[in-house]
Amino acid sequence: MTEAPEMRRGCFLTVEGGEGVGKSSNMAFIADCLRERGITVRQTREPGGTPFAEAVRQLLLDRESAPMPDEAELLLIFAARASHVRDVIKPALARGEWVLCDRFTDASYAYQGAGRELGEEAVAWLEQWVQGSLRPDLTLLLDAPVAVGFARADQRGARDRFESEVEAFFERIRQAYLARARAEPERFRVVDASHGLQAVQGQIQALLDDYLKQWQVSGTIRND
Amino acid sequence: MTEAPEMRRGCFLTVEGGEGVGKSSNMAFIADCLRERGITVRQTREPGGTPFAEAVRQLLLDRESAPMPDEAELLLIFAARASHVRDVIKPALARGEWVLCDRFTDASYAYQGAGRELGEEAVAWLEQWVQGSLRPDLTLLLDAPVAVGFARADQRGARDRFESEVEAFFERIRQAYLARARAEPERFRVVDASHGLQAVQGQIQALLDDYLKQWQVSGTIRND
Repeated sequence: MTEAPEMRRGCFLTVEGGEGVGKSSNMAFIADCLRERGITVRQTREPGGTPFAEAVRQLLLDRESAPMPDEAELLLIFAARASHVRDVIKPALARGEWVLCDRFTDASYAYQGAGRELGEEAVAWLEQWVQGSLRPDLTLLLDAPVAVGFARADQRGARDRFESEVEAFFERIRQAYLARARAEPERFRVVDASHGLQAVQGQIQALLDDYLKQWQVSGTIRND
Repeated sequence: MTEAPEMRRGCFLTVEGGEGVGKSSNMAFIADCLRERGITVRQTREPGGTPFAEAVRQLLLDRESAPMPDEAELLLIFAARASHVRDVIKPALARGEWVLCDRFTDASYAYQGAGRELGEEAVAWLEQWVQGSLRPDLTLLLDAPVAVGFARADQRGARDRFESEVEAFFERIRQAYLARARAEPERFRVVDASHGLQAVQGQIQALLDDYLKQWQVSGTIRND
């Protein structure tokens, strides 16, 4: 009997950023870039990706009718993540596919850890307990000053309130993202998202091509 | 100006036990016992007690249509608990009321920690993070051999499957409850629930009267 050749695990790519940085507009572009280069891409999002995680997402969106403490928000996000990791992300990576995920645990550090001031330690404990050793291989951080993001959100009518408290909240989120990018330069690529869409997509394309070369060269088998 | 006299915090009383031990039948009896003795009782249950926590309970009950990992189950339970503690339990205790709760964190140790084998450490971390110093003052553990509980559950048609795997699961739960009761004899009162309802309620009444004397004597002001 011959054994099947051991397949290389796929690349786990996450896209992060605050409000109005163009994350949604760029997700499809990134998926297309990768597919044009012959890569099988599993595009997904957090919180979500499984029937259970989507039900949790709905709870998070229904917070007006059923308010929750900040701690509960973080726990719900990791409950959804446990399902997403087990049932979608790990199986796809094991099949050798690339997983392209709209937000992941960096968002928990930025939004709940820093934005809601729950602290890094709680997020780190949950990350380790829920994910084990699974971490993204590459994270694109779309970064723009908070005021730029808000102006864009305004244009599409997504901004319903804007007070100094809210601005400080989003400033904490931005700074937490940037601090994480500085702490893990190997994993993060920071994209200046304050420019127009075409310029941003030019940056994304260039850094994806750069990363792909690195990925192909480093073709070791990974088992997370 | 005269300050309002500092009110003594109410007693936090939880009722625990495995399947078929008569927990539901005895909750109302316990509440009545306490009310007859002039105590204001806030009766509640876990998971539940707030609109958010009840929505989480529904997710836990819908697991057939949206299956979840065991880790997600534990995180959901603590998300609901965060809401219940903040919005119901702590305010009632602060008003001097007694809180009578159908299951609390001992159930997480027994069902998720031991039954689902997630381990004590994860439950302990979540307990500390979500509850801070809040712990029950008194816990009634209704205990009966697993076979007795199952025979009762059978009678009311609540048992839809019964395999050796399921029996081992409930045996782990029972043993975890008993180990916790041994470790905290000051807090726990173990009620032999294998007898008939009248005998069980006799035991409960006697130990509540005993505890009430102790509670009145120890009338220190507590601030959890």
